[in-house]
Amino acid sequence: MEKITGRRNPLCVHFKKLGTDRDYRAESGEFLCDGLKLLVEADRSGAEIVAVLTCDHLPFPLPLDTKVYLTDSSIINSISPLKNAQTVLFSCKIPQKSDEVSTTGTSLLLDGLQDPGNVGTIMRTANAFSIDNIILTGACADVYNPKTIRASMGAVFRQTFRYMSPSELKQLKEKGTRFVGASLGSGSVDVTEVNLKNALIAIGSEGRGLSPDVLALCDEKVLIPISPECESLNAAIAAAILIWNAR
Amino acid sequence: MEKITGRRNPLCVHFKKLGTDRDYRAESGEFLCDGLKLLVEADRSGAEIVAVLTCDHLPFPLPLDTKVYLTDSSIINSISPLKNAQTVLFSCKIPQKSDEVSTTGTSLLLDGLQDPGNVGTIMRTANAFSIDNIILTGACADVYNPKTIRASMGAVFRQTFRYMSPSELKQLKEKGTRFVGASLGSGSVDVTEVNLKNALIAIGSEGRGLSPDVLALCDEKVLIPISPECESLNAAIAAAILIWNAR
Repeated sequence: MEKITGRRNPLCVHFKKLGTDRDYRAESGEFLCDGLKLLVEADRSGAEIVAVLTCDHLPFPLPLDTKVYLTDSSIINSISPLKNAQTVLFSCKIPQKSDEVSTTGTSLLLDGLQDPGNVGTIMRTANAFSIDNIILTGACADVYNPKTIRASMGAVFRQTFRYMSPSELKQLKEKGTRFVGASLGSGSVDVTEVNLKNALIAIGSEGRGLSPDVLALCDEKVLIPISPECESLNAAIAAAILIWNAR
Repeated sequence: MEKITGRRNPLCVHFKKLGTDRDYRAESGEFLCDGLKLLVEADRSGAEIVAVLTCDHLPFPLPLDTKVYLTDSSIINSISPLKNAQTVLFSCKIPQKSDEVSTTGTSLLLDGLQDPGNVGTIMRTANAFSIDNIILTGACADVYNPKTIRASMGAVFRQTFRYMSPSELKQLKEKGTRFVGASLGSGSVDVTEVNLKNALIAIGSEGRGLSPDVLALCDEKVLIPISPECESLNAAIAAAILIWNAR
């Protein structure tokens, strides 16, 4: 196994940029993941693993054409964009797919959710409850941000998702998709009183809520009733309660 | 308003230690919070605010005896234990209370939840749904960790909580509290089939689940049914679904 001893090694430079630069991820068509657990998930899910940088010999085999390099933890720490860096970093190819969004299943629309931890946690929850699609719109965190991937606990490798522009969302609506928006505004009804199954459930950011574009598409608006002294729920928590009610 | 210009100022040193050192928080009887939003929450909830360090004049009045110091953002950044430091840091007195735990209400028992973000998010969710008490046991994250406090979005100032040892939990059980544990082990039934109202709902860490001590106290065990390809839910998400089902 080849050994990498310097931080200026091209693979280290490449990994470091993958970890921090969204545009670079898109250009290079790769993303960075960390940890043995995610490596197992990536392999099991058939993700195309490009290169692995590890402090130890791997405790399981990878496909023969995967490039594996040995290094030490100080180099891993210097490259990893995450606190509590793991002993393994690896890159995967961004799948060249355009997931079709069915107009009949139960789906989530994430509208401007900027926190990668929340987007990853929502992906993990959605996958656990067999949500059909996740659609992202507006200024959402990058699904391929290492923090999103870590919070998703591997769901990113399994969950169907795609980005959509406001005009694509409009087309989806014209094809018959029922939009239900989570909104604290007037005209919202208790989440338990609306059928969320087979709807596209729209969730906005904690601070700003749904964008006017998305609100305009909503057939129904729901709210999760909370104690008046609390301003809002965490977005991933709100998503979980909506997903739970959509079963 | 007094101005602080050096990082070695005793207040800066004190704040820095409050942010990073759990034992020091306990010794000094204070904890550190960040951000204007939390300052509003602290003031509104009647928390005893000791000192405020701010980059700008505050947009609202504080009690007259609160010490407010002006500084610049580089000093705030160097003190704050959090990424995306806010323009305000402040300390509050740890309330000298011992919240009584009623044996009749709906309560949560957090068993060894080490992630401060999860503990804070659970506190925020519990408070939003009027959970009576939160009990922490085992190696849980400190409620007064700045990350817990930020994730709680001020719920830490409002929510009743206390730490309990295994023997105190046993006493609670002897007084008639019904323990329901979230567990993926055998003998657990679907969460929708158990009445969670007026129970003490126990939640363990994602990795290890409930401790043997807590499991032994459980009258009933519940699980949240998820897709077989997913290992587990995030602990704060599992807590939210349990809380939702306890309404």
